Amino acid sequence: MHGGDIYRNNIHFDYSVNINPLGVPQEVQWVLTEAALHANKYPDIFHESLVSDTSMLFDVPGHQIVYGNGASELIMAICHHIFPKKVMLLAPSFSGYESCINGAVPKCNIVYHYLQEDNDFELHHNIVEQIMVEKPNLLFLTNPNNPNGRLIDAQLLEDIIEQCEKVGTTVVVDECFLPLTGREKELSLAYQLNKYKALIVLRAFTKTFAIPGVRLGYALCSKKSLADGLRAHLPEWNLSIFAQMAGAECLKHRDYVDEAVKVIEKERDFLTESLRKLGLKVFKSDANFIMFKSNDPFLVEKLLDYKIMIRDCSDFVGLNHGYYRIAVKLHNENEGLLSALGDIVNG
Amino acid sequence: MHGGDIYRNNIHFDYSVNINPLGVPQEVQWVLTEAALHANKYPDIFHESLVSDTSMLFDVPGHQIVYGNGASELIMAICHHIFPKKVMLLAPSFSGYESCINGAVPKCNIVYHYLQEDNDFELHHNIVEQIMVEKPNLLFLTNPNNPNGRLIDAQLLEDIIEQCEKVGTTVVVDECFLPLTGREKELSLAYQLNKYKALIVLRAFTKTFAIPGVRLGYALCSKKSLADGLRAHLPEWNLSIFAQMAGAECLKHRDYVDEAVKVIEKERDFLTESLRKLGLKVFKSDANFIMFKSNDPFLVEKLLDYKIMIRDCSDFVGLNHGYYRIAVKLHNENEGLLSALGDIVNG
Repeated sequence: MHGGDIYRNNIHFDYSVNINPLGVPQEVQWVLTEAALHANKYPDIFHESLVSDTSMLFDVPGHQIVYGNGASELIMAICHHIFPKKVMLLAPSFSGYESCINGAVPKCNIVYHYLQEDNDFELHHNIVEQIMVEKPNLLFLTNPNNPNGRLIDAQLLEDIIEQCEKVGTTVVVDECFLPLTGREKELSLAYQLNKYKALIVLRAFTKTFAIPGVRLGYALCSKKSLADGLRAHLPEWNLSIFAQMAGAECLKHRDYVDEAVKVIEKERDFLTESLRKLGLKVFKSDANFIMFKSNDPFLVEKLLDYKIMIRDCSDFVGLNHGYYRIAVKLHNENEGLLSALGDIVNG
Repeated sequence: MHGGDIYRNNIHFDYSVNINPLGVPQEVQWVLTEAALHANKYPDIFHESLVSDTSMLFDVPGHQIVYGNGASELIMAICHHIFPKKVMLLAPSFSGYESCINGAVPKCNIVYHYLQEDNDFELHHNIVEQIMVEKPNLLFLTNPNNPNGRLIDAQLLEDIIEQCEKVGTTVVVDECFLPLTGREKELSLAYQLNKYKALIVLRAFTKTFAIPGVRLGYALCSKKSLADGLRAHLPEWNLSIFAQMAGAECLKHRDYVDEAVKVIEKERDFLTESLRKLGLKVFKSDANFIMFKSNDPFLVEKLLDYKIMIRDCSDFVGLNHGYYRIAVKLHNENEGLLSALGDIVNG
């Protein structure tokens, strides 16, 4: 159901998870090793240092910031707090929103906004009308969207949130992949939280700093009451000492992301062009991952023979067999993937 | 509100947290350092290896075992899943149950069973009658109880659970401190889960292996539906790679606990006797911590001058000023505490 399942597959190259291709920053790696020596201490129950650094970074008061054991924990807390009768999700989109809704709010009515293949699954203005009609209590957006990687137009995003305010919808904008698009400063709602009434911006360290094993994310809320609501549903000491120490170090290395963006832009173009040369339909992406379409429904299994794992997207609502997602990795790795794909496609 | 707040206090000896006095087992320390190199991998979403080892240890099917980001996460999931109209708590007892109830189930009616000081705050048979009358949906017991450290009589515990089955109460027995009493094999309900209908046994690695910074606990449920209910309220990837790797290693070192128990028994006697010699009222304890009473309401502040932190118990429901809890630590450390306390008491 998710990428990255290295526990039940024997793989050398994992293209199914979309993390920073440069890997863990060296300083963060050092801090994680150091953190092992502090395993005998309770973490800070208030995450004081992380909250204060994040507060300065985005010019957001600390009481509007909620740290979680990965963005997944915050998505679950949002579902518990809002407890929506009706939620709107994009299709296709990250399945984690739906699994949290199903777990936390079993009777919730899930309404999908279907993205269109002939538009590269890009979000368009017709969602505003659907929000007006459906009046969901909660809307999850991913910017850029997963699995296709397209960003949401800034004006459209503003129109969506304005419409949501009119009908009383709380909006979650999941920006987990936004820093790796290179357009974070320009497009992130984290810098304009105060403009909105009921907005939650989600961030994670997982993708940006390539530390999915650590579990660390945060929510920036447009008002204190929303943040307090989330906190009420989170357990005490939800961050490990590893997460707290690594997070503090990551916040010092935002330039590391700029380096990664350069690699990603170049390699995304290279992969897109090369996949097209192999006769595959490749969808436009602004992110560190690419979705493509193939006539071959067994591509995942065939690549596993090369110890390469890619993401089969057939379980995404709104997609079916033949859609695949790959991460953008370093050039020599990408050449390896293309070589294996070439073998398979050319028989 | 909790012990172990080294982030807002300058302390050298932390008697406010009750972890294994021997510290982190060396092999676990090594594994945590090694785990840092795996921070770039997603943890196993199914915790397969941990669940399978735990299943063998207690002879409980894997589908009845739920792993959490510390026992705190499981307490929160229990509250979300049971969603009780009425909960019964011991007073005094660990405040974490109440904070989870307040967060997850704001309108829940909390009923206290008050423990009696002249009985060393030991649990007695009158709780059975109170359960019969109150019919709570959920009951939290801690065995041994925190902050006083007394074990629950085995027959009484059986009577309580039987009464709970009659009135439809789900029982949580938090055994976080049980291994450190040396009577785990004899008293744990983990080995007799199948006897009961709606029982959850909570365990943590925090105290037993002195790794509060890692966050790792598990719930053993008397039936699959209860475990599935808990899992529905837990986020995906709730365990870090550090927790998964350390947990697997801890499960190999259960003899480490036996060593700790010997130290604890000896030092608990030494501390009890020495505190009594200082004129303090010491309550009977079976655990790796001791509660005592003093006429001095400023003992915490005075000990901070010696960079020693103890737990002020005045915020526990059922207690007030003058009750303090200390961990049982190694002999030379305990001598340090006693020396400082002697200074203070003798002016």
